[in-house]
Amino acid sequence: MAIITLTTDFGEKDHFAGATKGAIYNELPDVRIVDISHSVSPFSIPEAAYIIQNAYESFPKGTIHIIGIDSEINVENKHIAVLLDGHYFICANNGIMSMITNEIAPEKIVEINIHDKIQTSFPVLDVFVKVACHIARGGTLEVIGKVIEHIKPIKNIIPFVNDDKTQIIGSIIYIDNYGNVITNIKKGFFETIQKGRSFEISARNHKFKKIYEKYSDIVDFTIPQDKRNDEGRGLVVFNASNYMEIAVYKSNSATVGSASSLMGLDLRDTVTVNFSKK
Amino acid sequence: MAIITLTTDFGEKDHFAGATKGAIYNELPDVRIVDISHSVSPFSIPEAAYIIQNAYESFPKGTIHIIGIDSEINVENKHIAVLLDGHYFICANNGIMSMITNEIAPEKIVEINIHDKIQTSFPVLDVFVKVACHIARGGTLEVIGKVIEHIKPIKNIIPFVNDDKTQIIGSIIYIDNYGNVITNIKKGFFETIQKGRSFEISARNHKFKKIYEKYSDIVDFTIPQDKRNDEGRGLVVFNASNYMEIAVYKSNSATVGSASSLMGLDLRDTVTVNFSKK
Amino acid sequence: MAIITLTTDFGEKDHFAGATKGAIYNELPDVRIVDISHSVSPFSIPEAAYIIQNAYESFPKGTIHIIGIDSEINVENKHIAVLLDGHYFICANNGIMSMITNEIAPEKIVEINIHDKIQTSFPVLDVFVKVACHIARGGTLEVIGKVIEHIKPIKNIIPFVNDDKTQIIGSIIYIDNYGNVITNIKKGFFETIQKGRSFEISARNHKFKKIYEKYSDIVDFTIPQDKRNDEGRGLVVFNASNYMEIAVYKSNSATVGSASSLMGLDLRDTVTVNFSKK
Repeated sequence: MAIITLTTDFGEKDHFAGATKGAIYNELPDVRIVDISHSVSPFSIPEAAYIIQNAYESFPKGTIHIIGIDSEINVENKHIAVLLDGHYFICANNGIMSMITNEIAPEKIVEINIHDKIQTSFPVLDVFVKVACHIARGGTLEVIGKVIEHIKPIKNIIPFVNDDKTQIIGSIIYIDNYGNVITNIKKGFFETIQKGRSFEISARNHKFKKIYEKYSDIVDFTIPQDKRNDEGRGLVVFNASNYMEIAVYKSNSATVGSASSLMGLDLRDTVTVNFSKK
Repeated sequence: MAIITLTTDFGEKDHFAGATKGAIYNELPDVRIVDISHSVSPFSIPEAAYIIQNAYESFPKGTIHIIGIDSEINVENKHIAVLLDGHYFICANNGIMSMITNEIAPEKIVEINIHDKIQTSFPVLDVFVKVACHIARGGTLEVIGKVIEHIKPIKNIIPFVNDDKTQIIGSIIYIDNYGNVITNIKKGFFETIQKGRSFEISARNHKFKKIYEKYSDIVDFTIPQDKRNDEGRGLVVFNASNYMEIAVYKSNSATVGSASSLMGLDLRDTVTVNFSKK
Repeated sequence: MAIITLTTDFGEKDHFAGATKGAIYNELPDVRIVDISHSVSPFSIPEAAYIIQNAYESFPKGTIHIIGIDSEINVENKHIAVLLDGHYFICANNGIMSMITNEIAPEKIVEINIHDKIQTSFPVLDVFVKVACHIARGGTLEVIGKVIEHIKPIKNIIPFVNDDKTQIIGSIIYIDNYGNVITNIKKGFFETIQKGRSFEISARNHKFKKIYEKYSDIVDFTIPQDKRNDEGRGLVVFNASNYMEIAVYKSNSATVGSASSLMGLDLRDTVTVNFSKK
């Protein structure tokens, strides 16, 4: 049974996601539809790129991912279908795929050309669903598009490293449900530059000299529970997706606060790593 | 495989939607359940009417739609099941269906009478699920209710037209995830009154003399991208559901603003169309 | 076909829920996954306990429930799998299960020991999914854990009763999507203490002497609709899950107000029942 996933900025309330699912079942009664997220911030390409990158790999090879963010077609915003890592992605050529393609080369990219005279303000329903069902039925990409070589890049995804490699300047690309702030500095990238040196991570006036393996590693379990002060303390981890993340243990933005709220960290803020001279 | 959809004001957090899905699978292990929305504003019949009208058509004929809004039974609020356009709808007789029945005549309406002594504060679980599963198993409406001829209307759905047909007075019936405001003026209705005349659309102190085909039509792609000022500009479109909508290109209520936030437009506000005398 | 449900604090936006679903389908293409809730407040064990208790019973026996709240493993927070009432529950041993086990004795509890060297900051994906799929394939609990006798309790779940049984002191444990406030006083418990006596329920300065059967029972349908003042009035019901609930008829926190907003009632506030001397 084919799997089609949905990642959109449709929100949880409107009929858009429901209508899209109905249209898929109308074409393919036996497909499996999985919601990844409909709560991407409206038109946020970096958020969508981060979410789909970290969700797709868990799915079986052959899964078809519809990404409905800023997908209205116009002369500058074409529709593409990408085969990469055994998965299919259908989206606008607006940078969403470049966070993944920076790490894994696509096997094939086509610019979708089934539109003809479709004038639509709901391209996910009218175009992406048709393409997804075509692929789910075993159709090839060449039938629904013409092969292209390159896709549009997204800006500011790669952190900056200075010439003598004593500094990484990254930025915050995502804030998660716990208010933890995620930077664009990945574990492999960090370690390549670090080469075992000690370091100091700075975000605003907050400094960190250690990267934990998991959130509760900040807790000193030898201290009796009622005398600890670990909840609410900031720490740095490489998260489950291998991104450097500034977190607060057991955070909750609405009550005790979070890394974002307590440290005043927001999207696009700078996070700097300074390595010791050695 | 039968499809049962859910449109409710249960919200995303509580156990209500999960319990409802469990109860359906308990009766029918092979049914397919599709969430349309659980984020309808509590007790908002117009919102639910708009969402189900624009979602249902994408589903295959024979789909069964449970609508759980203001569904507690009492002497003034009976439960109904409606067969219309090849789809089944199960809801309270509180006006939800009248936005659809204004356009398409129902094939059959029954007032559900399986309650007997069921005293329930969770009628979706205790009544609607039973009715939906009955229909999914091929049961007829007559078995679970008595045929009635009319359903309760919803107020203020049809815009007002003045006697000499120089003016349509509509209102805002829905605000979507992008902060775009949707009026009760549908494309076919508008064109019937317009008869090719030029027009001016007014909402508060905002005026529009053109209706675009899609959102990005407001962009002048001949101007270099960094010199454009299209993002954040208001426009009018007929949306994918053919409703007149006042939108802002690439809007986001939380950041750059939206039609609702930037123009101060809210539910039930008036939107007027004045046609030229010709 | 096995059913696996998900109850987490992942939120609606992040990739966590999507990745979890992908990982399950990757192991078991034919399983059925049902989202119960991903909007539990971050790290809120009482909320998760309330939601899973009231959702699980509707599902068929044999359903496997993954509960991903505060699930990072450490010396004080082990992972458990519980067989109870014919259902399987996989979660951290942090009190989540004790609201259910207070009422129904578990058939079997195991402490999961498949971790070996898994260092993970995403235990739902890396541990709970594996355990769930093991159970779905018919595997026994003993294979993935060692049997234990007791699980960690959650505090303040049981209301206090004074010595001469003239008073119950309960508290608010959950606020639902309608802003209704739910206490820890269950119907059976209340009636055992009440023994038919009249009573007065107090929450802040609000007093109630009657418990309704359903929300609209507060409406006097003999009065013409436009002369009623029932909307917005507070009432007490035992809700569909048999918890004493202070509600407002047709409430909406964002517009007309709700029990929580209108009466200033919040989580952990006290609700007292005083019985007449008789």
